[in-house]
Amino acid sequence: MSRPQKSVAASSVADQVHKVFPNDINSHQTVFGGAIMAHIDRMALVVAERHAGQTCVTASVDALHFLAPAKQGHTLVFSAAVNRSWNSSMEIGARVEAEDSHTGERQHIVSAYLTFIAVDENGKAVAVPELIPETDSEKLRWGEAQLRREQRLRQAEELKRYRCETTGSC
Amino acid sequence: MSRPQKSVAASSVADQVHKVFPNDINSHQTVFGGAIMAHIDRMALVVAERHAGQTCVTASVDALHFLAPAKQGHTLVFSAAVNRSWNSSMEIGARVEAEDSHTGERQHIVSAYLTFIAVDENGKAVAVPELIPETDSEKLRWGEAQLRREQRLRQAEELKRYRCETTGSC
Amino acid sequence: MSRPQKSVAASSVADQVHKVFPNDINSHQTVFGGAIMAHIDRMALVVAERHAGQTCVTASVDALHFLAPAKQGHTLVFSAAVNRSWNSSMEIGARVEAEDSHTGERQHIVSAYLTFIAVDENGKAVAVPELIPETDSEKLRWGEAQLRREQRLRQAEELKRYRCETTGSC
Amino acid sequence: MSRPQKSVAASSVADQVHKVFPNDINSHQTVFGGAIMAHIDRMALVVAERHAGQTCVTASVDALHFLAPAKQGHTLVFSAAVNRSWNSSMEIGARVEAEDSHTGERQHIVSAYLTFIAVDENGKAVAVPELIPETDSEKLRWGEAQLRREQRLRQAEELKRYRCETTGSC
Amino acid sequence: MSRPQKSVAASSVADQVHKVFPNDINSHQTVFGGAIMAHIDRMALVVAERHAGQTCVTASVDALHFLAPAKQGHTLVFSAAVNRSWNSSMEIGARVEAEDSHTGERQHIVSAYLTFIAVDENGKAVAVPELIPETDSEKLRWGEAQLRREQRLRQAEELKRYRCETTGSC
Amino acid sequence: MSRPQKSVAASSVADQVHKVFPNDINSHQTVFGGAIMAHIDRMALVVAERHAGQTCVTASVDALHFLAPAKQGHTLVFSAAVNRSWNSSMEIGARVEAEDSHTGERQHIVSAYLTFIAVDENGKAVAVPELIPETDSEKLRWGEAQLRREQRLRQAEELKRYRCETTGSC
Repeated sequence: MSRPQKSVAASSVADQVHKVFPNDINSHQTVFGGAIMAHIDRMALVVAERHAGQTCVTASVDALHFLAPAKQGHTLVFSAAVNRSWNSSMEIGARVEAEDSHTGERQHIVSAYLTFIAVDENGKAVAVPELIPETDSEKLRWGEAQLRREQRLRQAEELKRYRCETTGSC
Repeated sequence: MSRPQKSVAASSVADQVHKVFPNDINSHQTVFGGAIMAHIDRMALVVAERHAGQTCVTASVDALHFLAPAKQGHTLVFSAAVNRSWNSSMEIGARVEAEDSHTGERQHIVSAYLTFIAVDENGKAVAVPELIPETDSEKLRWGEAQLRREQRLRQAEELKRYRCETTGSC
Repeated sequence: MSRPQKSVAASSVADQVHKVFPNDINSHQTVFGGAIMAHIDRMALVVAERHAGQTCVTASVDALHFLAPAKQGHTLVFSAAVNRSWNSSMEIGARVEAEDSHTGERQHIVSAYLTFIAVDENGKAVAVPELIPETDSEKLRWGEAQLRREQRLRQAEELKRYRCETTGSC
Repeated sequence: MSRPQKSVAASSVADQVHKVFPNDINSHQTVFGGAIMAHIDRMALVVAERHAGQTCVTASVDALHFLAPAKQGHTLVFSAAVNRSWNSSMEIGARVEAEDSHTGERQHIVSAYLTFIAVDENGKAVAVPELIPETDSEKLRWGEAQLRREQRLRQAEELKRYRCETTGSC
Repeated sequence: MSRPQKSVAASSVADQVHKVFPNDINSHQTVFGGAIMAHIDRMALVVAERHAGQTCVTASVDALHFLAPAKQGHTLVFSAAVNRSWNSSMEIGARVEAEDSHTGERQHIVSAYLTFIAVDENGKAVAVPELIPETDSEKLRWGEAQLRREQRLRQAEELKRYRCETTGSC
Repeated sequence: MSRPQKSVAASSVADQVHKVFPNDINSHQTVFGGAIMAHIDRMALVVAERHAGQTCVTASVDALHFLAPAKQGHTLVFSAAVNRSWNSSMEIGARVEAEDSHTGERQHIVSAYLTFIAVDENGKAVAVPELIPETDSEKLRWGEAQLRREQRLRQAEELKRYRCETTGSC
């Protein structure tokens, strides 16, 4: 039996605004990284559950990069989409911009890739729909997601080998 | 000199997701009204500042109606847009739906109309761009906003007259 | 069988202090409207449940006006009382002042009218006690509440008629 | 020159309601002690600043007793008043009850005594008005506050002597 | 049958860091006492439950002293340990320092003694392991805890006698 | 001139307890990933600033893996240490366990590697002390950190090449 299929658009979110508040600000007047991470995770979760049609849990965050700081008075603008799905896991790409809502100027401040797993009532992994990329940009991200997955596996093996060679306990 | 003009789309937000969390829940397991009100205000503020290009403050909330309760596990989905602008004030319409992110089902749970005022550094009201409604739905909301404004003025006068007649102090 | 009766004093709250905290403050150093709205809702809920003797839910917020900003260092002072009860609903009037606790000076910054509904375990509306206004001020508010209710009904009908005339879909 | 005088009523707060929320609840379904302590401190601060007419800081909490647990669905009801003032310090007594807002039943759950100090811009202690107890109950608390203060001094000395005798380093 | 025994080290916590955040700060730029109290209670709870092997609840806070203010940019550093256990209660001593994480400088800002009680599913007090102090410092604190307990009992009796003599109702 | 040197122990934190609270819990009763991420970032920041002796900002999170869920009633136990420093950046390794404080049982639930950068007043990167690993475990982590850094660079290049080949825009 063939797996159900879903488009990227069916689950993605875009232009999610969050006006920066004093408690988001650290002691040198820029937005605290952990607050942005928590927001990204919370939004990516909605995207994952929309795609999976199931309860999802965060499995990993693999390349969350802070490119520039956001400041008090800015509006954070989040977007997130499924890049690719495998059997029971999905890579979600997230992007955060800092907007000056008065002028409309925006700056790319964070990009991140998160992996979510769909689970049943007992926390056991369950299958998710196949993602069908449609636009060129979706197809590029779909290809990159596979590449990142292979990189992660290679990386884990290299680290294992290194530990084995260094400590003698393999 | 003519006032600058802006479209509705230039400032509106849509499909803003907020996964319901335990602290949003009151003691009978539905989402606490005050938490939704705070979210609406925070989003409407971004819409107002995008339209005004200025710092804005909430002036009033005039018809916030809870139509159905949201529950734990739901995702709240907010949208907000400027309905009409006057000299230095704007009516923002907001709508909240409760989404079951697993099935995609949505229910309209809250609608609200808020008035924001654009202010300068000293808190003095300043002019905002004229709103140019484009679609039929935008034009309808633009007309309704004027009607609601007139109703509010009439309402205030009726209440004043009532107080005057009842208490004798006018 | 006659309905139980309750006085205004039996459920009202007064002089409820809340020292303003950094997270209540927006980026132009005044108290965020949404934070005040959430507080008002939370207090009005207690008043409603005291009057109803039942679980209550917010049905609407109808005329919440911000008259002046509150600032860091201020103490917000809330009061709230049932203005009138109908079969299963109640209008709660709320008032917020900003106090400089050092000098005792106070300024009226917000007034609001909220409607709550008493519900049973299944969320179905249930009857609430009749409110018996005693003082002149309670009687005035009791009368005004009825007027506001009629205004809201008229307003809704006018808007419906306007939509009908404008769009042709009635 | 004689010191200014103030009554207890000029600064006290009573019947301060706080509906218990999920985040106030610990893992065995009663209200987390630390949340109640933070509320007490925040309210006592307002009382202290009203009496002192100055910025105040918490100096100590000396006898905070939890008598019974509060549960989900309850409304916490706080009251606090200055019991006595000395040169630049004040003892604030606080009392918390848990109310079932449906039935009106209340249970005394916490009592606490806090000491606040009035400070100037540089954090240096400054004089506060003399407290004039008026009712019998205020006079009793005024006397007890002095007794508690003497007990605290005796206690500190006893502990110092004990340490000296036990460790030999005095 | 003899009671189980536990060392101080088996349950204590040390060097618990908490970077001060804007919402921890009051309006005169120092850390709000109530926020520190809530943190102390939350950490002491873990220590109590580790020692008791049971659910624990805060019974009292008896001598929480603020020695110096903490400021924005500081890291709060908490430590807490069981000083002594009686049948079903434990005294937990807590200490807070303010660290300048750039220079490593630390200042002692708060010390506190809290009493926790171990309870079963129905909230009934249950026995806890005997605490065996090992180091000189642990033995000193073990002795002091007993002294403080006796002081508290004497203090309560003195207050009772005072009330009796003053009011005539004994 | 030679760079200052610091040990791992001079900045690391261990056994940092955080009792899980209702608001940390998502709708399927396990701890929300984003809440753990925010805690990790907040603790790693203290470690980074202790090592650098400067203000630090999060640059990236590179391999945050959730191994098992934490549940209500658990205590989260965090530890974090600098693994290696380069010119102005540091890799911080973090580990989270879920503890049943009643039985003492612990389970490894999260591991993460974060990169922080030391910055001056203007946000410009500044040099940090060299890290001198001392124990075998510190030396292993020091070697692995370099390997992970090289993997990240290789990964970025591979992705760039892939994009170039796929889209033709290089």
